[in-house]
Amino acid sequence: MPRINGERLIQRLRKLATFGAYETGVHRPTYSPQDMESRRWLVDQYESVGLSAHIDGAGNVFGRSPRPGPAMLIGSHSESQNHAGWLDGAMGVIYGLEIAHAFSESEACRNMAIDPVAWSDEEAHFVPFLGSRSFVGDLGQAEIDAARSRTGQSLSEALREAGLDKLPRETIRPERYAGYLEAHIEQGDSLEATGKRLGIVTSIVAIWQYRITIDGVQNHAGTTRMAIRKDAGMAAVRLASLIDANFPKAAGTRSVWTMGRLDLEPGAPSIIPGRATMLFQFRDDEDATLLRLEETLHGLVREASQMTGCEMKMERIAAGQPLHMEASFQEALLAAAREHCPDGYVRMPSGASHDAQILGRTIPAGMLFVPSIGGISHHWTEDTDEADLILGCQVLADAAERILASR
Amino acid sequence: MPRINGERLIQRLRKLATFGAYETGVHRPTYSPQDMESRRWLVDQYESVGLSAHIDGAGNVFGRSPRPGPAMLIGSHSESQNHAGWLDGAMGVIYGLEIAHAFSESEACRNMAIDPVAWSDEEAHFVPFLGSRSFVGDLGQAEIDAARSRTGQSLSEALREAGLDKLPRETIRPERYAGYLEAHIEQGDSLEATGKRLGIVTSIVAIWQYRITIDGVQNHAGTTRMAIRKDAGMAAVRLASLIDANFPKAAGTRSVWTMGRLDLEPGAPSIIPGRATMLFQFRDDEDATLLRLEETLHGLVREASQMTGCEMKMERIAAGQPLHMEASFQEALLAAAREHCPDGYVRMPSGASHDAQILGRTIPAGMLFVPSIGGISHHWTEDTDEADLILGCQVLADAAERILASR
Repeated sequence: MPRINGERLIQRLRKLATFGAYETGVHRPTYSPQDMESRRWLVDQYESVGLSAHIDGAGNVFGRSPRPGPAMLIGSHSESQNHAGWLDGAMGVIYGLEIAHAFSESEACRNMAIDPVAWSDEEAHFVPFLGSRSFVGDLGQAEIDAARSRTGQSLSEALREAGLDKLPRETIRPERYAGYLEAHIEQGDSLEATGKRLGIVTSIVAIWQYRITIDGVQNHAGTTRMAIRKDAGMAAVRLASLIDANFPKAAGTRSVWTMGRLDLEPGAPSIIPGRATMLFQFRDDEDATLLRLEETLHGLVREASQMTGCEMKMERIAAGQPLHMEASFQEALLAAAREHCPDGYVRMPSGASHDAQILGRTIPAGMLFVPSIGGISHHWTEDTDEADLILGCQVLADAAERILASR
Repeated sequence: MPRINGERLIQRLRKLATFGAYETGVHRPTYSPQDMESRRWLVDQYESVGLSAHIDGAGNVFGRSPRPGPAMLIGSHSESQNHAGWLDGAMGVIYGLEIAHAFSESEACRNMAIDPVAWSDEEAHFVPFLGSRSFVGDLGQAEIDAARSRTGQSLSEALREAGLDKLPRETIRPERYAGYLEAHIEQGDSLEATGKRLGIVTSIVAIWQYRITIDGVQNHAGTTRMAIRKDAGMAAVRLASLIDANFPKAAGTRSVWTMGRLDLEPGAPSIIPGRATMLFQFRDDEDATLLRLEETLHGLVREASQMTGCEMKMERIAAGQPLHMEASFQEALLAAAREHCPDGYVRMPSGASHDAQILGRTIPAGMLFVPSIGGISHHWTEDTDEADLILGCQVLADAAERILASR
């Protein structure tokens, strides 16, 4: 069985966290100088454990084992959200590196191929899952040309500045791989709340996202009588209240829904908002529930529009499909978890999106979660106990060996 | 009696609207090149009707009659809100010019002093009522040094760029003036709705304004169960709903309240907002009502905070006093209205703030409203019938003569 080196694992995790260090977390947006520096560092790391390595035109960092394979592709994304945590993505990337290293040190595993990978822009600074989607051949040039960052920079310009525009984008040759394994922090509190240390992922939820545009009548906040107002901001409040009151009835036990953004225009203290724009999303891993929630939302938008006299336009801007993880990979992860942490594991769906749901369309995929302290993520205070970080890596290594040995 | 020249009045109004023309309105922010150009044009206009004229260090444009006085100060502000109407402020400014012109052409009025004025930044691009407050001695250097525009430009820099930083700021010598008259579009629909053409202002409401900061817990929108969320955005929705439900009970018949701005942070689709910031204001012309509304707001903030578990901080960022217009000026305006438009006028409070409430602290002040078509203002579609524009100017001129003649 491969033995991972916990001290080395933590050392490399801490080192990766120095690129774009921010408070106790990191600020490493996709293709930023800090991000590119960390990717070049990963190339060196991959090579230092006997792999060939390169960065492709999407910014993905690939380590390739000299073994014929079939190889286990293991990784996650290495960029971060803005001012976010040191483990989100980074942990799965360093797991891949450590597991490749541990396999090379193990008599029994030396002939098994581990290909570690660091995807780019899972965090959607430009395009959600840019790197993994590019790898599975699901990213067209048109989308690349149209993409801009939240700060308005065009993707093409960012790729140029990062020195990636001349490099080819690697696409998958499925026959090379036995499958894909990704480990990630849970980013929630279910494991911590139930005293578990490992989550074996059964499925990844789909995110359905909407832009709701509400048009009222912009007017003077002092001279326009309450009776005749068509306040787009208050209409948005009405809609949000209806969602708050009615979604629990339509939701599944694990459904979540969020209004992440609400903009009132013009946004001046003495002007009645003439327009409000709401970004709203919900998530579930069952198609029936997703459809029911969308139908509910449609009805509430109609109702709020009638109540307020404001016109409301609802556009669906994203609608993914839930992905169910490979059964045999779940079994291997369960067996490894049972061995290293009896009673300390649980099967659970993932409420967050991960590159595994992109890879899982093309090759078998499995995922493992470790606890997030306080359930915090997408914030620089995000953290996980070192013991859990080490346990998770050992269990993922063990599962990889079980899968490769069974072939 | 002074006879104003309607054609000339409209011509000059149209001319002023060419500075920063936008659609059928204007975009003429305080101290912008278009604003300064229009102020220099006003200097020429004042001189062309036999007045001395200059721009002071606050950007106010003063026309001064050679007559000993006491003079009637007549005007309004000449900058505009962003992409706003052609009459808001501008109408009162051109009325002052036309009335000065008409008096100079009238045998009976030739010896009466009319001092037209164009105030700066009533619209608060930098500081609300900057010009009129500077003139009454209510603007300290500290406030000037601290002020920034909505776009982040410092006031000092803007004054430098406008070439005003070296000029002295004029302050009022009350003995010069019989008082201040200001005409303005109503910016509401009361006149139009009741078929009236003139509003004699009885009082100007006070605006009490608040910043309410709501702190929840920023977290991942997919992995954080609904049960444990502290969503600052939804807490803001809860508070806004409580205000919507409870303010009507506490309000006076003419009270208005508005949430003009609501910002959710970080404002990303997949992140539960950790902070929400709300700008909220209410207006009334009775102290007792203002106090009752503030007390109600305090209670609702407490209630919403308890309901949501989010901490809410409520700061009062502005609290003016209602101003009651000079009784004798109201009488003069009523008499003039009766003569020129029997049954076409009404006494009413002003729901909007105006420079008259600043001047009214120091010298007697009166105000006249003309209708806004559709009650629209602070928008480029704002407009008023030409016949009403001309009638309003004649009535204001007539009232000015009655007041000056009575001394």
